[in-house]
Amino acid sequence: MSKRPGEFELIAQLFAPLATAPGAFGLTDDVAALAPPPGEQLVLKTDAIVETVHFHPTDPADTVAKKALRVNLSDLAAKGAKPAGYLLTLNLPDATGMEWLESFARGLAEDQKQFGISLFGGDTTATPGPLSISVAMFGFAPAITRRSGARAGDCIFVSGTIGDAGAGLAVLRGEGHALSAATREALIARYRVPEPRVALGQSLRGLASASIDVSDGLIADLGHIAEVSNVRMIVEAPRVPLSHALEALWGRSDKSAARAATSGDDYEIAFTAPSEKRDAVAAAARASKTQVAEIGRVEAGKGVALRDAGGKEIAIGRAGFTHF
Amino acid sequence: MSKRPGEFELIAQLFAPLATAPGAFGLTDDVAALAPPPGEQLVLKTDAIVETVHFHPTDPADTVAKKALRVNLSDLAAKGAKPAGYLLTLNLPDATGMEWLESFARGLAEDQKQFGISLFGGDTTATPGPLSISVAMFGFAPAITRRSGARAGDCIFVSGTIGDAGAGLAVLRGEGHALSAATREALIARYRVPEPRVALGQSLRGLASASIDVSDGLIADLGHIAEVSNVRMIVEAPRVPLSHALEALWGRSDKSAARAATSGDDYEIAFTAPSEKRDAVAAAARASKTQVAEIGRVEAGKGVALRDAGGKEIAIGRAGFTHF
Repeated sequence: MSKRPGEFELIAQLFAPLATAPGAFGLTDDVAALAPPPGEQLVLKTDAIVETVHFHPTDPADTVAKKALRVNLSDLAAKGAKPAGYLLTLNLPDATGMEWLESFARGLAEDQKQFGISLFGGDTTATPGPLSISVAMFGFAPAITRRSGARAGDCIFVSGTIGDAGAGLAVLRGEGHALSAATREALIARYRVPEPRVALGQSLRGLASASIDVSDGLIADLGHIAEVSNVRMIVEAPRVPLSHALEALWGRSDKSAARAATSGDDYEIAFTAPSEKRDAVAAAARASKTQVAEIGRVEAGKGVALRDAGGKEIAIGRAGFTHF
Repeated sequence: MSKRPGEFELIAQLFAPLATAPGAFGLTDDVAALAPPPGEQLVLKTDAIVETVHFHPTDPADTVAKKALRVNLSDLAAKGAKPAGYLLTLNLPDATGMEWLESFARGLAEDQKQFGISLFGGDTTATPGPLSISVAMFGFAPAITRRSGARAGDCIFVSGTIGDAGAGLAVLRGEGHALSAATREALIARYRVPEPRVALGQSLRGLASASIDVSDGLIADLGHIAEVSNVRMIVEAPRVPLSHALEALWGRSDKSAARAATSGDDYEIAFTAPSEKRDAVAAAARASKTQVAEIGRVEAGKGVALRDAGGKEIAIGRAGFTHF
């Protein structure tokens, strides 16, 4: 493992080239500065990941970089914001060498290109503890989609497929030996590198009545909408979208749907919309080339229920998980 | 030490009350959002502090909170920006108990009031390593004062007094037994809780040709201005402003000025301005009730020199320090 240079050299070599926006000044000033789009709101989010808690020491560094960015991009996406850039804090243990950092910076560069964002500043400090990465992401939106706008009668939708990241983690922990390598890898990839639904989120501006990114688990996150919107969410287990890879691992049953809906780290968008906007939602999904499934409806009341095909409520042991 | 509650309870109890801005939504949504002042630039900075690296395990938690905010506020101040708010990442080891966190939140609250800022979001994660705190601060300015605008003939100024934080650290490490307790405490306080010159920074808008916050050390930070402005900075050691407390510890000599000018963590503003703006600089200092001293001048060339009363260059062993 090649020795790591000092902080100034590290910034010059690896991180200054990522400060592509003019207002990042190539990281040569105390701050970054940029002009917000006139009339738009500044949208802010921070999320951190810690080695051994949120990622494994053996995870490829470029995927760790992408995960650090994407968990934040996903929040902006769920609110309909267009991402602009990010600030990065790296707490680096001595053991983190130059190869790891080069791969990490490569992952950042790839995602900057994919999502049209720039590094706007950062801080790199030594730590006697584990590697940790904090990203503060910002973007802009004419107005954001809150969690609080769900109304009784609205339909519930979710993007993509649910449970793949949880299934990927299960595979990493030893499940699914009988699966093909390709299926196992597909699930692990979903765990390591989420796909934030940035285009869909912007397409849903003015359509979604409430919206959240699915990180704690579909049921838990719909619970957050239910709580602040003061409504009850009914999800039909047979309509929860599952991937073929997940079905190969856990099967297609109410039980597997329940496990998928409580496993977390999906980084899909769960949202509600009035039923008369169904067609517009379908058009927004097509426009953003993102799969969207209708999975239930909003009622008066409180909490979240997952129902089987017969309308019977499925007991859920834990409504999502937390890293804390 | 009282047991710490889970993440959601911790946020509700300690951090949601700090999210005082309307657009922080009491931390109940995925993101925060706010309308930037029309025509102003968004100004961004992140800086992290790690236990045992940047602060001591026995430092009072409220001062740790203030230091985490103020090292960032100081960067915004040096650029003439008005701070608006911040995102906070806490990596918490299991041993960090509720008393510590309550005191930490109290420190944040006090500084939010003093500087007119709000918490706009955060992330709290468990870590097997040391406590670390990352702050991403943002604010607004019509235009920022860059490092790159110093011109030959400009005067060099610095706010407050230099070297007190370094002297405070020296006291913590065992120097200054003969000093009074009040003097020792004054120096330690300057190390623990910097005084970012937020009002002065805004008063200097349009006056300063280049500006930087002094964190690596006066000489090192003037070196950063010299580098990007492509000029040479001449600092006169007898004019470096030293506090009575520092003089009690290190004496008043070229040697003590040199030590002060290379000791770092001052969080003063070092800046340049054309000589014809001297009076306006003095007026800005009075308006913001902040002491400002003229300490040298900008010449053609490169680098920084510290000169004694006779004009002879003082050799400097290390031009500042880095935590990396």
